Amino acid sequence: MRRREFLATPVALGGGSNLAGVKALAFDVFGTVVDWRGSIIREGTAWGAAKGLRVDWAQFADRWRAGYGPAMDKVRKGTLPWMKIDALHRMILDELLGEFQITGLSEEEKESWNRVWHRLRPWPDSVPGLTRLRQKYVLATLSNGNVSLLVDMAKHAGLPWDAVLSAELFHHYKPDREIYLGAADLLGLKPSEVMMVAAHTGDLKAARACGLRTGFVSRPHEYGPSGKPDTAAGEQFDATASDLRDLAQKL
Amino acid sequence: MRRREFLATPVALGGGSNLAGVKALAFDVFGTVVDWRGSIIREGTAWGAAKGLRVDWAQFADRWRAGYGPAMDKVRKGTLPWMKIDALHRMILDELLGEFQITGLSEEEKESWNRVWHRLRPWPDSVPGLTRLRQKYVLATLSNGNVSLLVDMAKHAGLPWDAVLSAELFHHYKPDREIYLGAADLLGLKPSEVMMVAAHTGDLKAARACGLRTGFVSRPHEYGPSGKPDTAAGEQFDATASDLRDLAQKL
Repeated sequence: MRRREFLATPVALGGGSNLAGVKALAFDVFGTVVDWRGSIIREGTAWGAAKGLRVDWAQFADRWRAGYGPAMDKVRKGTLPWMKIDALHRMILDELLGEFQITGLSEEEKESWNRVWHRLRPWPDSVPGLTRLRQKYVLATLSNGNVSLLVDMAKHAGLPWDAVLSAELFHHYKPDREIYLGAADLLGLKPSEVMMVAAHTGDLKAARACGLRTGFVSRPHEYGPSGKPDTAAGEQFDATASDLRDLAQKL
Repeated sequence: MRRREFLATPVALGGGSNLAGVKALAFDVFGTVVDWRGSIIREGTAWGAAKGLRVDWAQFADRWRAGYGPAMDKVRKGTLPWMKIDALHRMILDELLGEFQITGLSEEEKESWNRVWHRLRPWPDSVPGLTRLRQKYVLATLSNGNVSLLVDMAKHAGLPWDAVLSAELFHHYKPDREIYLGAADLLGLKPSEVMMVAAHTGDLKAARACGLRTGFVSRPHEYGPSGKPDTAAGEQFDATASDLRDLAQKL
C-alpha cells in the first residue's frame, strides 16, 4: 500500500502529483456544504415563534436527521420502493410531528416545513471556496438529496455547481457503489479523475473503494455542541482540509 | 381546444396568465442555444489549415449533423445499444473521415475533433438571455447531448444552467416521452410547470403532447444560408421569440 503511505505525508496533502489527474470534484452536500442542523433550528425557531409552538428545535433537527439513514436503508433493502429524499423526509416528519405533539398543521404547512431541506444554508466558507475551486475543476454535487432539492438549494444559497448529480439519477443511495461509479461515468471521467469531497469518512471510504480520490473537510459543528463529528485522524485521504476555502488553497 | 386558441393570441405570446404557473425552462441546446454549424466550420477551418487538409467544412458539419437523427433512431429501435451522443458522433465521424478522405489522424486527434461538440459556441444572445431568465426561472438543459458534453460546453461558453438534464439520464432520446416527463419529475414539477424551449417544432410538439408548455425561438441561421430552419408560422406555441433575449423580455 505504498500509495496510501505517500498520500498521508504533508506534501501530498498539500496537493501532490497524486492529485494531478483529478478533473472533477463531487461533493457531499448535507453537512459538508450546508449546515442542515443550524438551518433547521433557525427556521424552526422563527416558525415556532410565529405559530406559538414550544419545541426543542435542536432535538427536532437531530431526530429528523437520525431518521434518514434507517429510511434509506429500507429503500436499499427493498422494504420501501425507490423514493426521493423529499418523500423520506416527509415520512420521518409525519412521525416527528406526532412525537413532538405538533398538531393542527395544514397539508401546505407540512409540505413547506418538509422543504426546509431545500433551503439549507451553506457554511460561511462554502460559496467562496467552491467559487475558487470551480476555476480549476468541474464541480458536481453527489448527494442523497433529490435533484430538485439540490437545485432549489443551489439557487437559494448561490452554490456554483457545474452539474447536479444525485442518488435519484441512479436509484441508489450512498454508500452504494452505483452512485460513485455512475457519477464518474456521467462526468465522462475515470473514477481516479474524480475526487469525492465530504465531511464523512464512510462516504469517502466507499468512494475510495470505487477508485475515486478522496478529500476530507472538517465540519466540527455539524452535529452541534455535543455532537461527534468525523475527523481525519488515523485516516488516509488524498487531501484533508479545515474547510472549503482551505481545500481550494490546497488543491 | 379553447386553451390553444387563447394561446395563439398576441397577448398570450407576450406572457399571459397561461404562463403564470411555469417554474422551470428546459432548453434544447444544439441549434437553440449554441451554433453547432458555425462552431464546427470555424474549428474545422483552423484545424484544416494547421493540418493542410482541404475540406468543405460546411458540408462536413452538415453531414455530421445529418447522421445524428438516424444514429439515435438505431438506439431507439434497439439496433444499437444505449450510447452516449459522444459515441454516436464518433461513429459518424469515422465514416465521414473516410468519405472526406481525411487520413493519417492519430486516435488522440480523432477524439479531440469529436469533442468539438463539447466546445460549441453560443449564439450571441444566449448568455445574456439565459442570465436574465435565470433570475425568474430554474434553467435546465434538456438535450440529447450527454451530461459531460453539456457540462464541458457550459463551462466553455459560460452558460448559466441550474441543472444539466440529458437524454443520458433516461436512456431515451428526444422526442421520446420519457425524457420530457422524466425532466419534469426530476425538477419536482408538473409537466405544465415546465416550458420546453427549442428552435425545432418537432421537439416542442413532443413536449406539448406530454403536457409541457412550449417556447419557440427562431434560429434562422442554424442550417446556414441555404438551410431550411423551422418557423412558428401556423404553429401554436405558448411563447414565440426571435432569440433568447427576446424570450426573456416576453416572459
